[in-house]
Amino acid sequence: MSIENILNSASVKWMESEEGQDIVISSRIRLARNLMDLPFPLRLDQKAGHECLQRVKAVCQEEMPAVLNEVEFSGFDQLNILDRRILAEKHLISPDHAESNSSFGAVLLNKDGSLSTMVNEEDHLRIQCLLPGLQLAAGYELAQHMDDFLESKLEYAFDERYGYLTSCPTNVGTGLRASVMLHLPAMQMTGQTSQILQNIGQLGMTVRGLYGEGTEATGNFFQMSNQTTMGQTEEEICNHLQAVTEQIVEQERVLRERMKIELKYQLEDKVGRALGILNHARIINSTEALTLLSDVRLGIDLGILSGIQPYALNQLIVSIRPAHLQKDVAQEMDALQRDIKRAEIIQEQIKGIK
Amino acid sequence: MSIENILNSASVKWMESEEGQDIVISSRIRLARNLMDLPFPLRLDQKAGHECLQRVKAVCQEEMPAVLNEVEFSGFDQLNILDRRILAEKHLISPDHAESNSSFGAVLLNKDGSLSTMVNEEDHLRIQCLLPGLQLAAGYELAQHMDDFLESKLEYAFDERYGYLTSCPTNVGTGLRASVMLHLPAMQMTGQTSQILQNIGQLGMTVRGLYGEGTEATGNFFQMSNQTTMGQTEEEICNHLQAVTEQIVEQERVLRERMKIELKYQLEDKVGRALGILNHARIINSTEALTLLSDVRLGIDLGILSGIQPYALNQLIVSIRPAHLQKDVAQEMDALQRDIKRAEIIQEQIKGIK
Repeated sequence: MSIENILNSASVKWMESEEGQDIVISSRIRLARNLMDLPFPLRLDQKAGHECLQRVKAVCQEEMPAVLNEVEFSGFDQLNILDRRILAEKHLISPDHAESNSSFGAVLLNKDGSLSTMVNEEDHLRIQCLLPGLQLAAGYELAQHMDDFLESKLEYAFDERYGYLTSCPTNVGTGLRASVMLHLPAMQMTGQTSQILQNIGQLGMTVRGLYGEGTEATGNFFQMSNQTTMGQTEEEICNHLQAVTEQIVEQERVLRERMKIELKYQLEDKVGRALGILNHARIINSTEALTLLSDVRLGIDLGILSGIQPYALNQLIVSIRPAHLQKDVAQEMDALQRDIKRAEIIQEQIKGIK
Repeated sequence: MSIENILNSASVKWMESEEGQDIVISSRIRLARNLMDLPFPLRLDQKAGHECLQRVKAVCQEEMPAVLNEVEFSGFDQLNILDRRILAEKHLISPDHAESNSSFGAVLLNKDGSLSTMVNEEDHLRIQCLLPGLQLAAGYELAQHMDDFLESKLEYAFDERYGYLTSCPTNVGTGLRASVMLHLPAMQMTGQTSQILQNIGQLGMTVRGLYGEGTEATGNFFQMSNQTTMGQTEEEICNHLQAVTEQIVEQERVLRERMKIELKYQLEDKVGRALGILNHARIINSTEALTLLSDVRLGIDLGILSGIQPYALNQLIVSIRPAHLQKDVAQEMDALQRDIKRAEIIQEQIKGIK
């Protein structure tokens, strides 16, 4: 089963990384869809909720295009809270969806985790495609395949004038949110982030932390996405985000090169200390670990350090989150025990870095 | 020449260390003496100053007891400011003496640096004996030998009623200050230092930082000495300090053992991080280095770390002070250059620690 593999694997598709993907960690396309003749999730009663769930489940039994890579249905009755939190830490479902005790929640996952559709989160269906690096067009294409497949079997709530109808008016229209996960340590170190984020806002983009709305930008990781879903086509939204992303990547790259020359020792000091602490700490919390791993990642990107692949760092960042730690030791842990376990896992993974 | 050896050597006598000297780093005996028929240093003019200098210099030409281990005279005309600062960093003269541009300053040093007599500091003569570990009686005995030798050749300012006369009334009487350098990380970590230092005050002791009056207790190093010099014999002063020191050592030892059990992970974390940062930093200032080396020293003392001898840590702490760094590279350095050089020296010295 896909779900078992995904729960137990260190990796899902977006964590893979290739040459030139040092600044854009991953791209995400999300399409919000609802069924026409059922109340939207906020007003869903038991009966209608299960009806929605059953219809989606039935669709997953049918033959589907090979490009979807074997999407499977997993109801929340099969997934305990720890499993759901693991999916959230892997970015496959939202933290809210993970915490909801809805008996008609579910997730549709394909084999490599590139397609993940939440059922009965804020909307009946939230189709998500997550890919490594800057791949918005490819992500949109894959999400569209999933959308087409579902739409061929289910009747969507769609209005000729407004487009796809959604629970929150900010999603009405295309129902599309395109986003990229960025790693911007040089901008942060040179104190330019707030100015640049302000400019981004004026370009119709919004910026959040690693785990979406309301989370902070720990470890210099930022999620940037489009603010509006109406008045632009899907292609325009993706292209616009692509263009803004490329500009930010360019700025980050210029700053990194400048730092390498002007702040050589300070940079080596920051990166070296981060590695030294990660290698020797016995107790480390999640925020500090992420911050130091961000510094190590920068060291790898700039050639100051070597001995680990960026994909392994992506995996590591996820594997030290609380639910992953808990699954790893297969028992309840208090905060201190988690911080100790986290330090052990990190040391095992980074021991090859020099 | 002794002076050249001492300036160029990483080590002087007090830095040696043996079993059981983990908490008391060193013991120091100081005797303040003045010549009878010359104005005391604060009122000394050129003529009288040089007269004092010449008399002391002449005494050093005479045959002296073997126990003094070849004391030699070095006038400040032979020692530039960098050399004098190096002597101060090795605790052989005071920082004030090092900075004074007095043309009649001098220091009498023996071969291993265990005896160091400042000439024309606050008093005409300040005989000092510095030994490793808790050795107040041995230190007093050696200082007394030096005192006897000088007194046999020079006439001291001495009053039947008040005892030895000195520039500052707090030194009148025995002219004796006995002190110990303590390393008290467990007291600091458990927040008990201020209470204990208050109690020490009530026992007639005073506590200062690593480089004497007005310096802070960086790196958990404290200098504890007697406050009064009158109304007690020399033996009583030494015995009293010895007894108080033994009590503090015992308290520190109890706290260390308790921490080893109750705060095992926190202790290993603190020690490990210190080692990690020292091993990987590219830029490190003097205060941070001392603080981290204090943690590493605690790790060595408690068997959490190994691979370096305590004497090497004593040498290292001195060798990363500004004047030692400057002498080492044989050129003027700015603060950043010093911080970079300091990091290099530390890494070279601690590379064997595991």
